[in-house]
Amino acid sequence: MSARRRKFYGWGYADEGATPEEIRLLEQTLAARFGITSFDVTPAPRAEEITLRAPRLEVPAGLKDIVSTAHLDRLEHCYGQMFVDVARMFARSCPNPPDAIAFPRNEQEVTDALAWCDEAGAVAIPYGGGTSVVAGVEPPQADRIVSIDLRHLDRVLEVDAVSQAARIQGGVLGKELEAQLKPHGFTLRHYMQSFELSSLGGWIATRSGGHYATLYTHIDDQVESLRVVTPAGTLESRRLPGSGAGPSPDRMFIGSEGILGIITEAWMRVRKRPSFRASTTVRFKNFYAGADAVRAISQAGLYPANCRLLQAEEAAYTGPADKDAAVVVLSFESADHPVDAWMQRALELAAEHGGSWDAEALLNQGSHRAGAAGEWRDKFVRMPYLSEHMVARGIAATTFESAITWDRFKDFHSNVMDATRRAIKRATGREGSLTCRFTHLYPDGPAPYFTLTCPLDKAKMLQQFWDIKHVALQALVANGGTITHHHAVGRLHRPYYDQQRPELFAKALRAAKRALDPKGMLNPGVLIDPDRSEPAAK
Amino acid sequence: MSARRRKFYGWGYADEGATPEEIRLLEQTLAARFGITSFDVTPAPRAEEITLRAPRLEVPAGLKDIVSTAHLDRLEHCYGQMFVDVARMFARSCPNPPDAIAFPRNEQEVTDALAWCDEAGAVAIPYGGGTSVVAGVEPPQADRIVSIDLRHLDRVLEVDAVSQAARIQGGVLGKELEAQLKPHGFTLRHYMQSFELSSLGGWIATRSGGHYATLYTHIDDQVESLRVVTPAGTLESRRLPGSGAGPSPDRMFIGSEGILGIITEAWMRVRKRPSFRASTTVRFKNFYAGADAVRAISQAGLYPANCRLLQAEEAAYTGPADKDAAVVVLSFESADHPVDAWMQRALELAAEHGGSWDAEALLNQGSHRAGAAGEWRDKFVRMPYLSEHMVARGIAATTFESAITWDRFKDFHSNVMDATRRAIKRATGREGSLTCRFTHLYPDGPAPYFTLTCPLDKAKMLQQFWDIKHVALQALVANGGTITHHHAVGRLHRPYYDQQRPELFAKALRAAKRALDPKGMLNPGVLIDPDRSEPAAK
Repeated sequence: MSARRRKFYGWGYADEGATPEEIRLLEQTLAARFGITSFDVTPAPRAEEITLRAPRLEVPAGLKDIVSTAHLDRLEHCYGQMFVDVARMFARSCPNPPDAIAFPRNEQEVTDALAWCDEAGAVAIPYGGGTSVVAGVEPPQADRIVSIDLRHLDRVLEVDAVSQAARIQGGVLGKELEAQLKPHGFTLRHYMQSFELSSLGGWIATRSGGHYATLYTHIDDQVESLRVVTPAGTLESRRLPGSGAGPSPDRMFIGSEGILGIITEAWMRVRKRPSFRASTTVRFKNFYAGADAVRAISQAGLYPANCRLLQAEEAAYTGPADKDAAVVVLSFESADHPVDAWMQRALELAAEHGGSWDAEALLNQGSHRAGAAGEWRDKFVRMPYLSEHMVARGIAATTFESAITWDRFKDFHSNVMDATRRAIKRATGREGSLTCRFTHLYPDGPAPYFTLTCPLDKAKMLQQFWDIKHVALQALVANGGTITHHHAVGRLHRPYYDQQRPELFAKALRAAKRALDPKGMLNPGVLIDPDRSEPAAK
Repeated sequence: MSARRRKFYGWGYADEGATPEEIRLLEQTLAARFGITSFDVTPAPRAEEITLRAPRLEVPAGLKDIVSTAHLDRLEHCYGQMFVDVARMFARSCPNPPDAIAFPRNEQEVTDALAWCDEAGAVAIPYGGGTSVVAGVEPPQADRIVSIDLRHLDRVLEVDAVSQAARIQGGVLGKELEAQLKPHGFTLRHYMQSFELSSLGGWIATRSGGHYATLYTHIDDQVESLRVVTPAGTLESRRLPGSGAGPSPDRMFIGSEGILGIITEAWMRVRKRPSFRASTTVRFKNFYAGADAVRAISQAGLYPANCRLLQAEEAAYTGPADKDAAVVVLSFESADHPVDAWMQRALELAAEHGGSWDAEALLNQGSHRAGAAGEWRDKFVRMPYLSEHMVARGIAATTFESAITWDRFKDFHSNVMDATRRAIKRATGREGSLTCRFTHLYPDGPAPYFTLTCPLDKAKMLQQFWDIKHVALQALVANGGTITHHHAVGRLHRPYYDQQRPELFAKALRAAKRALDPKGMLNPGVLIDPDRSEPAAK
């Protein structure tokens, strides 16, 4: 049903992937890091190698145009893009596929699809770009399962150049969204690693984190209003630049992960494309010295576009750096004015905390992104293409992220690192690699992002992986952090989310869900448990 | 029960008020504006002139220390501070007073007070500083009514200087809060006209708007975590600088106006006291030219601390200005760096839109606030002290505010002004005075704030007032705005809020309330209707 097929077992489209040179470099890096002398490469799965349970639903005649039970469509909607998802595909294992996939072409058909799920007693899984790394699009055990794929709701419908806002459909993917805004001179500037393949509705439903390291970090702040289809009807909030009228309706749906409704449209705040840029890379003697510097910058009211602190080992992975140094990728940008004064003050603060940088590399680059920051970003967006090649070689690769106040950061960081390293050793008998960077910064604390890579025993790969990952996730919440800064909760983080969020909030959220989704058909088990024992609201 | 008595019929404490000179200037201004030759001054009410219904509740022995049924305590908790509240006090009319006032001294006593309300079948009205201008603290008709006054929860409990955050009790008033933060070198910098007498918990419950005209406008963004006592138990959210884990629990309580629980504590983001300031006043040929200029500034990413556009007539009221000009009070401030580059760029944008300013008046004032901005602010905070003197003279004085996207702003402004002016003329036969300023600015639109002053016929003062006010409020929502940008909904705005917020959101909010407050005892009728027909959640 799509012009261009996505790869069902890994990142990207079926007709693309990592280049042979990228794969060669990956093997070289893994060999050097883990002392691997040869790789046992599991071949990528072919669709016909995987048997799916027969569909347990009849598609009504009226929906034949928009509902598919085709093998490849169902295969494509079994999993998201986390390590375990790719690993299960490489294991040719999809025991719980959706029975059917709906591809509504407009909002009325979203309503129709939900009505059908209601009649058929099916659970409905809202599906945007399918890039969840937290099992957010993976169906639960249920008698009948329908994924509702929003890919055809892919248009920027209206641009209000005066207010700098655009009305955009929920299913549009990041790259296509930007292509449609560009002729108007605007950008949403919400980039993340999954940008090419993830959707606006998915970003809003999961509170995704974007390009900016400070200030406008989450999509939350860019939402002006929403349209949401729920089983109880369709809701539209008012376009307002600000309001103090009751709890924000939008904030109830932002982060609701498909349990309350399906986001079909949003008015989003956009901005002019930046024409002034300055960026550089500042070195620090170690990670904590760098952390003190970025804390000072984040509390100074300068709002850099990027201010990512990378641990020495991680910086080395993406470019040359001292083995002992930590690095801050620092940049400012504006569509309105040169940003020299901003950069100058940020560098003064960096210097006060022992930072050093190459003055010649400090460029006011105008509209072109270049230098270390650009190079880092280019490599960053290519990484997902390597995940299937890691899986094929039995190498675990996963990330987990959090946020924590500055006063607790150092203990948090060292406890999470220690617990995770011990878990790697215990599970695999090896050291593995665990690094940390800051993806986002707030005046009251950083968002640390951990990257874990380690060779597993292919025979018990999934068990080893879970033994490590669950220790890491538990360490995040046990040490006071959030279970997720921008990857969402999904099914993966649910046990840790339950520890973090106040139980009375869960109670209120269950009640709100019951009001909008009385049968509990939308994404059951995500955020809260199905609660059929409680009576439906009128 | 309080060391210093508040004035029960107007603004401030019983032992203070407008100076004779301020009253003389007020009369002079009113005389000049409305051609009034002599004033009929109703004397301020004395407590013994007002008869209250006998308390309909017995105070249990265990609560005698914290519950009062004293005449003056009950009188003080009848109304907020809107024009009609003062006018009803001047009419010696309080037909629906609370039966008792609880003054809990700690969180456990808040719980005890709610438990008593539950047992006694009383509705509970959370009460902070009592400065609501939307009937937010006024009891509804009910068999038994208890106001829960948080004045003894008045401490900054903890300061985290590293993360720049402080744990603060919900009942502390603004002035006292700042006095407690000051020794630590920090400030919340959340100033508004009611600052001296309104409370942190009240600000959070009503999404108040503070000092900053851009960026951090509402209290919402300064909340790091909350503690809330609900009839179903006590809830605490986790201290996090940012999170993507489900819908924000805090955002459900921010703006909940006391219907879900009582905010007893919050971790708030604070900041260092500013040491660099620049401010000036820019003149424009008219209001719309000024609006275009501040739109450009708000979309430039400069984030001025103040950028208030004042209509000519209003500017003239608070200082000398051309009769035809509009004025922008523009200021930048920082605790970290000189703000010259920021101010310079903002003035370039102002100049591009025809703005002019006195270069000599452009001061980099360091830590001292001075010049036009300071003068304007000093007069601004004195205004509430005049309200009783307006009422005594039969002069209506009220404000209403909204927010609207830039593309619709001019139509919105002219429709609201026209409808309200016609209503003044229709109700009173006179012109009255109606002015507009922007209190807050967003890249996608302004928050217009309207000030209405007009002489009424004392014999039918309240009816005339309502005939005007309801037309104005209806014009806000009918023209696409929000019913309130930062005054909250309360009982006054409820019919307009109902038009604005999606009905399905109300349904979800009712369900959430039922989960936390099964008997509907907290502030019934605020935001949503009591909903006893629906079964309680477990």
